[in-house]
Amino acid sequence: MMEPPILDSLHGPGDLKQLAPEQLDALASELRQRILHTVNLNGGHLASPLGVVELTIALHYCFNAPEDKIIWDVGHQCYAHKLLTGRADRFSALRKKDGISGYPKMCESVYDAFGTGHSSTSISAALGMAMARDRLGLDHHIAAVIGDGAMTGGMAFEALNHVGHLKPKMLVILNDNEMSIARNVGAMAHYFNRMITNRPYKRAKQDVGSFVKSIIGDRMVRTIQDLEKSVKGFITKGGLFQELGLNYVGPVDGHDLPLLIELLNRIKDMDGPVFLHCTTEKGKGLKAAEENPQKYHGVNPMILDTDKGEGDALPAQKTAESVPAVPSKSFTDAFADALVSLGAEDSRIVAITAAMPTGTGLSRFEEHYPDRFFDVGICEQHAVTFAAGLAVEGLRPVVAIYSTFLQRGYDQLIHDVCLQKLPVVFAVDRAGLVGEDSPTQNGIFDLSFLRAVPDLRIAAPRDARDTALLLEWAMTQEMPVALRYARSSAPLIGKEDGRAVDRAERLRDGQDLVFLTVGPCASQALKAAELLANEGIGAAVIDARHIKPLDGAMLDSIAARPIITVEENTLPGGFGSAVLEYFEGRSTQAPVRIKRIGLDDIFGEQATRAEQINMYGLDGASLAAHARAFLAAGSPAPDA
Amino acid sequence: MMEPPILDSLHGPGDLKQLAPEQLDALASELRQRILHTVNLNGGHLASPLGVVELTIALHYCFNAPEDKIIWDVGHQCYAHKLLTGRADRFSALRKKDGISGYPKMCESVYDAFGTGHSSTSISAALGMAMARDRLGLDHHIAAVIGDGAMTGGMAFEALNHVGHLKPKMLVILNDNEMSIARNVGAMAHYFNRMITNRPYKRAKQDVGSFVKSIIGDRMVRTIQDLEKSVKGFITKGGLFQELGLNYVGPVDGHDLPLLIELLNRIKDMDGPVFLHCTTEKGKGLKAAEENPQKYHGVNPMILDTDKGEGDALPAQKTAESVPAVPSKSFTDAFADALVSLGAEDSRIVAITAAMPTGTGLSRFEEHYPDRFFDVGICEQHAVTFAAGLAVEGLRPVVAIYSTFLQRGYDQLIHDVCLQKLPVVFAVDRAGLVGEDSPTQNGIFDLSFLRAVPDLRIAAPRDARDTALLLEWAMTQEMPVALRYARSSAPLIGKEDGRAVDRAERLRDGQDLVFLTVGPCASQALKAAELLANEGIGAAVIDARHIKPLDGAMLDSIAARPIITVEENTLPGGFGSAVLEYFEGRSTQAPVRIKRIGLDDIFGEQATRAEQINMYGLDGASLAAHARAFLAAGSPAPDA
Repeated sequence: MMEPPILDSLHGPGDLKQLAPEQLDALASELRQRILHTVNLNGGHLASPLGVVELTIALHYCFNAPEDKIIWDVGHQCYAHKLLTGRADRFSALRKKDGISGYPKMCESVYDAFGTGHSSTSISAALGMAMARDRLGLDHHIAAVIGDGAMTGGMAFEALNHVGHLKPKMLVILNDNEMSIARNVGAMAHYFNRMITNRPYKRAKQDVGSFVKSIIGDRMVRTIQDLEKSVKGFITKGGLFQELGLNYVGPVDGHDLPLLIELLNRIKDMDGPVFLHCTTEKGKGLKAAEENPQKYHGVNPMILDTDKGEGDALPAQKTAESVPAVPSKSFTDAFADALVSLGAEDSRIVAITAAMPTGTGLSRFEEHYPDRFFDVGICEQHAVTFAAGLAVEGLRPVVAIYSTFLQRGYDQLIHDVCLQKLPVVFAVDRAGLVGEDSPTQNGIFDLSFLRAVPDLRIAAPRDARDTALLLEWAMTQEMPVALRYARSSAPLIGKEDGRAVDRAERLRDGQDLVFLTVGPCASQALKAAELLANEGIGAAVIDARHIKPLDGAMLDSIAARPIITVEENTLPGGFGSAVLEYFEGRSTQAPVRIKRIGLDDIFGEQATRAEQINMYGLDGASLAAHARAFLAAGSPAPDA
Repeated sequence: MMEPPILDSLHGPGDLKQLAPEQLDALASELRQRILHTVNLNGGHLASPLGVVELTIALHYCFNAPEDKIIWDVGHQCYAHKLLTGRADRFSALRKKDGISGYPKMCESVYDAFGTGHSSTSISAALGMAMARDRLGLDHHIAAVIGDGAMTGGMAFEALNHVGHLKPKMLVILNDNEMSIARNVGAMAHYFNRMITNRPYKRAKQDVGSFVKSIIGDRMVRTIQDLEKSVKGFITKGGLFQELGLNYVGPVDGHDLPLLIELLNRIKDMDGPVFLHCTTEKGKGLKAAEENPQKYHGVNPMILDTDKGEGDALPAQKTAESVPAVPSKSFTDAFADALVSLGAEDSRIVAITAAMPTGTGLSRFEEHYPDRFFDVGICEQHAVTFAAGLAVEGLRPVVAIYSTFLQRGYDQLIHDVCLQKLPVVFAVDRAGLVGEDSPTQNGIFDLSFLRAVPDLRIAAPRDARDTALLLEWAMTQEMPVALRYARSSAPLIGKEDGRAVDRAERLRDGQDLVFLTVGPCASQALKAAELLANEGIGAAVIDARHIKPLDGAMLDSIAARPIITVEENTLPGGFGSAVLEYFEGRSTQAPVRIKRIGLDDIFGEQATRAEQINMYGLDGASLAAHARAFLAAGSPAPDA
């Protein structure tokens, strides 16, 4: 691992083409080591990036990026791509503040042809690029690399359907991870499995290089057109994609570099769209796992779960000294425990996830009630409407979904659930800033887009205790409810018992101003109140708990004091706006002084959650500073 | 048409089962006449409802609704269903205020098993119902009827994939309209076409009754299991659905009532999911069209376009006396004309629709620039990300989409377009109240959910002139832009020339208060100002034009006067909230008096647009009343 690496001699994919074939294998090794080393330090995805190392080398060897466009679906496959495109020297800053993103990001590099973080977008983007290329009279290559999990997302199908209609020259590469398939959901996964198992694929896998060569024959003699026919002879059972009008090639061993290079060079100039089916092995080349898979699995228990789908990221792995002895229970844990417990009392409760059983904690519910658990795959739209159907028949579905992915089920939430007043509970996890993941994964818009939906009740627990109580409360509502909570620990804030979860809760008294907070923001507001108390300023802290409808009696009771709202959501249309709206609705009253604190109108950059909270002024010291400024601005009465 | 009808003797689908077979044909005729008559008077969908008359009769004949659940995808197919389920006596109120909805609506009837208005939701809902049924130990039947256009929506594929995985007993009926197929977009459409044309379908269509009977043989002898095998023998080329794990049956003639009844009775108890492929004829049985298709086409020019997809509804047909001699140009017309004109100057401009070429006006762009026009089918998600891909390569895509359907592309708008600051223009048509269509189609949330998206510019033209100017302005932005406009005429408001479209515009002076309006709301505000002027109250009217970012200089200039915001959007997070937020951000200033007028936090019920504007208090008289009350509340200074 410490010998002078080939990798560091490469300044871009152009240099790659100068390497001798035998150096490519060594490069693959180096890439794996660099990825493993960095992810072990920084956290991040592992199995997925390791699986596409050879494919990445082959793509950059055969294509000329950045003129040729390579689009990595979901995005967390992109580590080898980043290492090969001039970012090896900065790769140690993977997923760190001001560092390298764990996802492709157009503003980071011209080699990142399209930003991806959510699943199943690559074929649509690639098709758009292909049609634009043809319109502009250009002739570069365009390749989308999509995982088998992402193929279950409906928009991938929408795009394939359109590709088969327009038929431009483009390449769709299915990165089909055999282990991932086995865990995958849906008929499509069975279809891929049959494609592999119904024929002598195992044998072909060993022999495939010579097999293809025997078909292709002398490189110089046959024309591309001949090749097209012969490659088609290599098709096994890609009927589905053939039916949709793509040229199906595969399955091929995605770790056989010479084969991949030969195939890519041959098929890249085929007319029309080509669907190349590569099979890859999860965590390929991970020495530690090969030597002692059990131990390795135990040391990094979450690694093997990350490959189930998009965004199911590892939490950052702490260095030894920073790991707390007993980590606080997270909101996700609290939700999962509470749901298991409620499930015992109410057999109508069923749980739905879109490919995030571990990330949402629903795997615990599955352990207890396997027949009441549904993992629909990466299908947020279907997940929501499927839940609506379950509710129509009298069950009580809980859809656990990350805030950022709920954006993809927004129409279904409006049209299928709320318009019909169906009692579906949305457990909106990862709401707020999500830390080291890309801006694509921040869940900082949900309060705004959910507030716009009639008949939806929205609440936010501030700690683990509230999570359990609010989930229980949600189950008693005969209407849709969304509970939003952060990707963080959920230590106790305020008293544990005697909570009235249908109302706001005063956590601290103070006559000079009121911090009115959403969810765990209460914690920073309490810190701010403490700081202000040292200066003789009395700041009350009230956990609003309910965002829609608001606790009007509480709001009326604080109208005479300056109010500072605090939320981990962007400001346009968020919680603070709800408070403004409430008092506007009482416009005959005296003016109420309100200051909204939250995220500005931004997407938010990667950093640890703690860094983000400081960066965006949501920490206790910043809140105290806001309070001082607000009080100061109010004291000399302006010319009104 | 005037003979004593069978239809009026039926009080529910139970009565249907008492009819003799020969009466069913007569009933089909009556249903067609009733639908045609009502739609001619009230407007509405026509081709789609006429195509499923026999299928509807057969379903209600073979199933026992409401215990058995029949789900009509998109929903506008449901007219015969409504007539057969106790609503014939009220059917003349189709699409009228307080009348019968043009879509299934759970709160209207127990026979409407699931509300639908947007496309491609039925299989998800049906699967949810099927899983709940099995969990609850019940055994009723569940059938989803989905059109071929709706099959291109990704969530239909997500659902099929999950159906093939879970394999409950349920029926998915593809209502495959041959004419619609020909116009349909995408590889799936070609697939259906091949299924029909690659085999002797034309012959089979005539002979199919006896053909099936020859397969099925003696009804009493064979078991369902035998039938399952023999029905499978009836499969032609349903490979795609077979691959996904459904039992494919078809294609069958969807107008052959005895065949449909026999098949449904046989297949409804098959184990596992069944996919029944019915072919139907568009506008089947429409006598006027049969006798003189050209004339009929001319009289009702929009009828034949309604069947291309969901929601592409006819405008209400006016009675002769109410039709204006020269109808005002609509916003859609103004947009379409402007885009054609801009397209001549800038060859980078390309246009994208999701199956609404006529409704969005893009068909005019297609006429001029066929190679710069893309109809992606009912695929809002793909449409948006496809546009992002086009923009990456330097083209200037305009996505014309209805407000209500943009909800389905929300994640893509955030994640693929705005996060990457790509210059895609969203032409958001049907924004606001849409009239006689169902609450599912109202576009009254877009200001709220779009405002939450960073880096998106949002503007709203008030008339045709502004539509052209703002589209031109949007094309000069190097950022994403959304223009939202109503389903209405767009007569001139204010001066025609000298407009500065990058700013707000004062339409009327007045010192006592300011109406600050969005889009065509300016017209009602001007009426209100006129009424108030008669009472000596001076009301200014300002067209805000830009919702994000707001025109701050204008807002600063009116801060001393009471402000009434007026928008055709719900109030939570809408335009009025943006104004509240703006002045909150200037909290050192004197308090600003603001009253927000818009739609309350509701979905909005069907009525004409004029009725809706009155119902929801957005007409001139209501605005004047709001202004009087607001001024009155402000004059006795409260104890502040």
